[in-house]
Amino acid sequence: MDLTETFEWVRNHSLYLCENLIIEDFSLQASEEVSPPKWHLAHTTWFFEQFILVPNDPSYEVKHPQFNFLFNSYYNSLGARTARNQRGLMSRPSVEEVKIYRAYVDGAMLKLIGRNNPEIDELVTLGLNHEQQHQELLITDLKYSLWFNPLNPSVMDIEEYVSESKSKWIAVEPGVYEIGYSGDQFCYDNELNPHKVYINDFAISSALVTNEEYIEFMNSGGYENPTYWHDEGWAWVKELEVKAPLYWENQEDTWFYYTLNGLKPIDLDSAVAHVNFYEASAFAAWKGLRLPTEFEWEVSQNQFDWGKRWEWTNSAYLPYPGFTVAPGAIGEYNGKFMINQMVLRGASVATSEGHSRPTYRNFFHPKYRWQFMGIRLAKSL
Amino acid sequence: MDLTETFEWVRNHSLYLCENLIIEDFSLQASEEVSPPKWHLAHTTWFFEQFILVPNDPSYEVKHPQFNFLFNSYYNSLGARTARNQRGLMSRPSVEEVKIYRAYVDGAMLKLIGRNNPEIDELVTLGLNHEQQHQELLITDLKYSLWFNPLNPSVMDIEEYVSESKSKWIAVEPGVYEIGYSGDQFCYDNELNPHKVYINDFAISSALVTNEEYIEFMNSGGYENPTYWHDEGWAWVKELEVKAPLYWENQEDTWFYYTLNGLKPIDLDSAVAHVNFYEASAFAAWKGLRLPTEFEWEVSQNQFDWGKRWEWTNSAYLPYPGFTVAPGAIGEYNGKFMINQMVLRGASVATSEGHSRPTYRNFFHPKYRWQFMGIRLAKSL
Amino acid sequence: MDLTETFEWVRNHSLYLCENLIIEDFSLQASEEVSPPKWHLAHTTWFFEQFILVPNDPSYEVKHPQFNFLFNSYYNSLGARTARNQRGLMSRPSVEEVKIYRAYVDGAMLKLIGRNNPEIDELVTLGLNHEQQHQELLITDLKYSLWFNPLNPSVMDIEEYVSESKSKWIAVEPGVYEIGYSGDQFCYDNELNPHKVYINDFAISSALVTNEEYIEFMNSGGYENPTYWHDEGWAWVKELEVKAPLYWENQEDTWFYYTLNGLKPIDLDSAVAHVNFYEASAFAAWKGLRLPTEFEWEVSQNQFDWGKRWEWTNSAYLPYPGFTVAPGAIGEYNGKFMINQMVLRGASVATSEGHSRPTYRNFFHPKYRWQFMGIRLAKSL
Amino acid sequence: MDLTETFEWVRNHSLYLCENLIIEDFSLQASEEVSPPKWHLAHTTWFFEQFILVPNDPSYEVKHPQFNFLFNSYYNSLGARTARNQRGLMSRPSVEEVKIYRAYVDGAMLKLIGRNNPEIDELVTLGLNHEQQHQELLITDLKYSLWFNPLNPSVMDIEEYVSESKSKWIAVEPGVYEIGYSGDQFCYDNELNPHKVYINDFAISSALVTNEEYIEFMNSGGYENPTYWHDEGWAWVKELEVKAPLYWENQEDTWFYYTLNGLKPIDLDSAVAHVNFYEASAFAAWKGLRLPTEFEWEVSQNQFDWGKRWEWTNSAYLPYPGFTVAPGAIGEYNGKFMINQMVLRGASVATSEGHSRPTYRNFFHPKYRWQFMGIRLAKSL
Ligand SMILES: [Fe+3]
Ligand SMILES: [Fe+3]
Ligand SMILES: [Fe+3]
Ligand SMILES: [Fe+3]
Repeated sequence: MDLTETFEWVRNHSLYLCENLIIEDFSLQASEEVSPPKWHLAHTTWFFEQFILVPNDPSYEVKHPQFNFLFNSYYNSLGARTARNQRGLMSRPSVEEVKIYRAYVDGAMLKLIGRNNPEIDELVTLGLNHEQQHQELLITDLKYSLWFNPLNPSVMDIEEYVSESKSKWIAVEPGVYEIGYSGDQFCYDNELNPHKVYINDFAISSALVTNEEYIEFMNSGGYENPTYWHDEGWAWVKELEVKAPLYWENQEDTWFYYTLNGLKPIDLDSAVAHVNFYEASAFAAWKGLRLPTEFEWEVSQNQFDWGKRWEWTNSAYLPYPGFTVAPGAIGEYNGKFMINQMVLRGASVATSEGHSRPTYRNFFHPKYRWQFMGIRLAKSL
Repeated sequence: MDLTETFEWVRNHSLYLCENLIIEDFSLQASEEVSPPKWHLAHTTWFFEQFILVPNDPSYEVKHPQFNFLFNSYYNSLGARTARNQRGLMSRPSVEEVKIYRAYVDGAMLKLIGRNNPEIDELVTLGLNHEQQHQELLITDLKYSLWFNPLNPSVMDIEEYVSESKSKWIAVEPGVYEIGYSGDQFCYDNELNPHKVYINDFAISSALVTNEEYIEFMNSGGYENPTYWHDEGWAWVKELEVKAPLYWENQEDTWFYYTLNGLKPIDLDSAVAHVNFYEASAFAAWKGLRLPTEFEWEVSQNQFDWGKRWEWTNSAYLPYPGFTVAPGAIGEYNGKFMINQMVLRGASVATSEGHSRPTYRNFFHPKYRWQFMGIRLAKSL
Repeated sequence: MDLTETFEWVRNHSLYLCENLIIEDFSLQASEEVSPPKWHLAHTTWFFEQFILVPNDPSYEVKHPQFNFLFNSYYNSLGARTARNQRGLMSRPSVEEVKIYRAYVDGAMLKLIGRNNPEIDELVTLGLNHEQQHQELLITDLKYSLWFNPLNPSVMDIEEYVSESKSKWIAVEPGVYEIGYSGDQFCYDNELNPHKVYINDFAISSALVTNEEYIEFMNSGGYENPTYWHDEGWAWVKELEVKAPLYWENQEDTWFYYTLNGLKPIDLDSAVAHVNFYEASAFAAWKGLRLPTEFEWEVSQNQFDWGKRWEWTNSAYLPYPGFTVAPGAIGEYNGKFMINQMVLRGASVATSEGHSRPTYRNFFHPKYRWQFMGIRLAKSL
Repeated sequence: MDLTETFEWVRNHSLYLCENLIIEDFSLQASEEVSPPKWHLAHTTWFFEQFILVPNDPSYEVKHPQFNFLFNSYYNSLGARTARNQRGLMSRPSVEEVKIYRAYVDGAMLKLIGRNNPEIDELVTLGLNHEQQHQELLITDLKYSLWFNPLNPSVMDIEEYVSESKSKWIAVEPGVYEIGYSGDQFCYDNELNPHKVYINDFAISSALVTNEEYIEFMNSGGYENPTYWHDEGWAWVKELEVKAPLYWENQEDTWFYYTLNGLKPIDLDSAVAHVNFYEASAFAAWKGLRLPTEFEWEVSQNQFDWGKRWEWTNSAYLPYPGFTVAPGAIGEYNGKFMINQMVLRGASVATSEGHSRPTYRNFFHPKYRWQFMGIRLAKSL
């Protein structure tokens, strides 16, 4: 696919994800952390308008003077922003108007892409990766918001259950390894620079932890014994009276699980999903094992299957040696989040096709579980 | 109008109020205190279904088994309820489905009304008054939610500005007066029983406080001087850095005011609206005057015009002598709110036609301002 | 007693109350609502210094330039204040220094009182009533703070249990009655002006509700049934999982009660104490009865014994007709609290001798229970 | 010094630190994070009683049955604990009783130490290191609590200002280095195991950032420009309206700084203290530099002076390869805090003599500033 085709394909995919939504679903925002589908559709469009069209196309007229204000996200340097937790309150512009906005920007973008300007093309690639990131968020945010509806709406055909085969230990030789992206395709700034890391003797599990194993942990008092938990994780368990992963619901002693396709009985063979870092760590501690570091994951990932669950690592999200913040607003991109977040590696059933790499660093605060997050175990040798 | 006609007229009016809304507007809920239009439309319908059809029509089948759960409000005795602040999250049932629900219940109701059963008719009248109350809330809740939208949407043709003539003092003779409703039409339980109250010597203002007068208060430091305020009111001013009534916005030294018809410059001659009890009291204190009691208001109301603003009184919302709580769920109606609320008398530009009486007791916590609340002054003689 | 003797007697009583305290107890402040004993001792002294000595004695030198800042309370007009919830953090000045401060001010005051200036004497009387109010708070605040100590300290010899005889109904003739203070001794501004109130037909109970009766309410599910509760009261019960009055503790199915003399088994015959307005109202509703209004209480109080418990009334704390706020800082005294508080009548085991009157209006927000608050029932006839 | 002498020396030092306190100071607790001096004195004693005397000395009788409950800290496995934020409320036991408790435990301990049992001696060393940690907290917690007192109490003779010489860059060779403690003296479990780390090319500053440099940052708008800050740090600045390090106070355009010796003008030449990780990072970003990692610090520390400020690193507090949690309650020691904390290296003016090592890993949540925390800069080469 050339860039024009990729552009059209990625842009259409965002709309395709919303095919089964009713208008009312487009505004759902169940918490500050999640955004409504309509906002994702508009914000990804605004990114192209603001960072590519406005600076590079003198003939371009912004669609609406206030859209910059409405669909800005965390880019503080671009001006005042609407409060994050009020995105669901923007009933106007309507879904229809946002779709028109998308078409308007797409038209202008396609003309610009036609010029084959390498600098612009690089920005377009960044914009498309940005949109793909938001596609995954659109899915996971929507799932979270719909879950508050006692009617358990069914809106997407994603196969959330993924069977895991029996796990084996994969041992890795200690030594100095190269970490980070060193290819010539697109990567995020947080994957740079490629650099050396010394890896000590360890082994990693070939399979993800399954629902069956996780239920064993639950049944053996996993959520009642502080020994397995970080102090902060234990406080989280106690405060919210957590007893199971997110979206799990017990009805007459049977576990059900809310999927984007409606409520379903738990599939014991599937990889567990929607656990946070505290839960992943506690599970590992209960097993007498630990989570891998992101470096251990990266040097061993070619020896196991991955891509259905974001896998918690025991690495904090920190800059690689020589990491620098790009100047200007786009430069705010990743560096400012490098505190109090843990790295997740891999990809998930909600990740857009073509949007994963062995060096990709996803990151979330340890308390969050609304992504498709799973557990892979490791041990020091 | 007979009861059938009244029923159809009131029920249609709820839909009429939503005529200019887009689907996206129907789910707006900007705070826990307000409810989305769709919820109001469904909840008022549920009231007829649950309190009239289910107990009185053996052939009636509820529209949906979970609507009782979804559209219940504060009637704790009817079962678990969805959290009040999550009403905006119920994207399903859709607006369309709620309209079908309304039509379905209306059909069953009209048959039941046709039977001319006096007990049922009394309940129908209660249900219609309930719906009219929610019509006013639909308007004021919607205004509050739309106000968060920087686009200042215009959705309703309500003349919010009402000019006041010059005020005069109306003096009232002291003595024992009869208070409360003693007619034979509908009234709420909180207007009963009619009883004697001794009224001391006082005078009441013939006009409401205007925007011009209120701006004078603001300009003379009204929001900066604790002397005028209740301790609790002053804490409210300080915490939220309040500087003007709700919906007021200062742009380059000019005051604007958000109406359901969009943002407009302040009309100096109009009665001030959207002040809370703390502000009303502080204004009165600044003037060296006070607010009337609800009894003073009731015995003098036939000597002045009212009906455009709910008027704060200095009376707490408490039961009249002999007040009793009706048995059963409907009985929860009013008594349980008789604490920490102040009485407002009159009616407002958002009150439905035919839904006001001189003995009507509206009530809100002193901090709220999202109703069309205004100020009438009084003094002891 | 002449004023000099009264002054010495009241001032000494504050110190006498602290006789069994260790230095460490003097700083206890378990919540924002309560103040440490040391603060009460200093603040009551500051009142004399600031409102009497400074304006009236040109030769008086304030003890310390920052004491005005430290021991001010809610008198906003006198300058910045230390945050209310940080009073327990003022380890300096020491208890010893505060006692020296008291002696210093007492010396100056006694000279001033010797002059027999009627205007000053009136202020002195106000200051002594202020101190007596704080004496009761010193007791109840300290009880609250000590209750957090698992060692159940015993520090005061107050007979908290008071036996109630069997209750009878006392009926009162309807008609116009005179309410408020009309004598020539000291009273607070909130007891004025004396004025007429029409009292409808009612009866009031001769005895207070006992622990035995209250346990009956608890055992019959009083705290589990929303029907008896105000909506706000029910939210309070649910949020804090309330199951009994304050200071009650269940050990192996026996109820104990923390007193200033240590933990004791519940005395069934004693009047219940430490219930809030929500609990008092719920108890009354469970009985099919109600609380009296403050007016009903005042016109009937000479027909029953009172003085061991502050008795919740169903009257909101509002100004009497003709009430005016005195100019100046002392004028802030009562008016600013006239919102969201309910009136309590009577007095309690912690009230200082000579500090009660039939027209005395105590007031607290309905949620509070740390005073010795009890329940007297009434009914409309 | 032999172990007996060390024991006496360390134990006495805790009391020595309190020499200038008045009884009232011993209970101060200005926030949940800090503990009162009395609690530190008792809790360190309880550690010896509970972990050494009770398991190892059959003749030992605990001083008081409830002290285990009162002076427990975060050791969840030992039983219920008093809420952390209520430590200041424990007026009983008195300071005197706690001193008697210390003497009682010391007596029993000295006998036990006399037995020269190596296993016990190891626990004693742990207990003494525990006490030294609490000595530093006693100092810093007390400073924090006293700071709320407008009288600016002076209680300790610590030279808080430390002059820094002009900074030079120290470059370090890249390569594999050994990290962690490998000696045969005491170290904490978090310093183990010694292991290899690859260090990339970098340079580190020979001096700490001074107050003068920090004021330059402040004056050039450091606290007003989000570009320099982590997203979370910026939210912290905005919410608390931070404008300077902790304990800084601006009086008529001069900066003052509260020390344990009272309020003093800022010393421009001194190393800045009491900045949190967000501030340290923002300062570094403003300089176009960065903080060192804890590994960079460890391999270069012998080339510069350190020990007056805890130095923020850009390393998250995570386990070293092969780290294992010791079984039993003492095992809870460090592992459970390994999330959302950043490592600080070095020591401070409040660190007890003999309680620092090049491999020592201190750690705090990035928002905290009440320790003597400073800034050393680094850069990649
Ligand atoms: Fe984005
Ligand atoms: Fe309703
Ligand atoms: Fe006072
Ligand atoms: Fe400790």
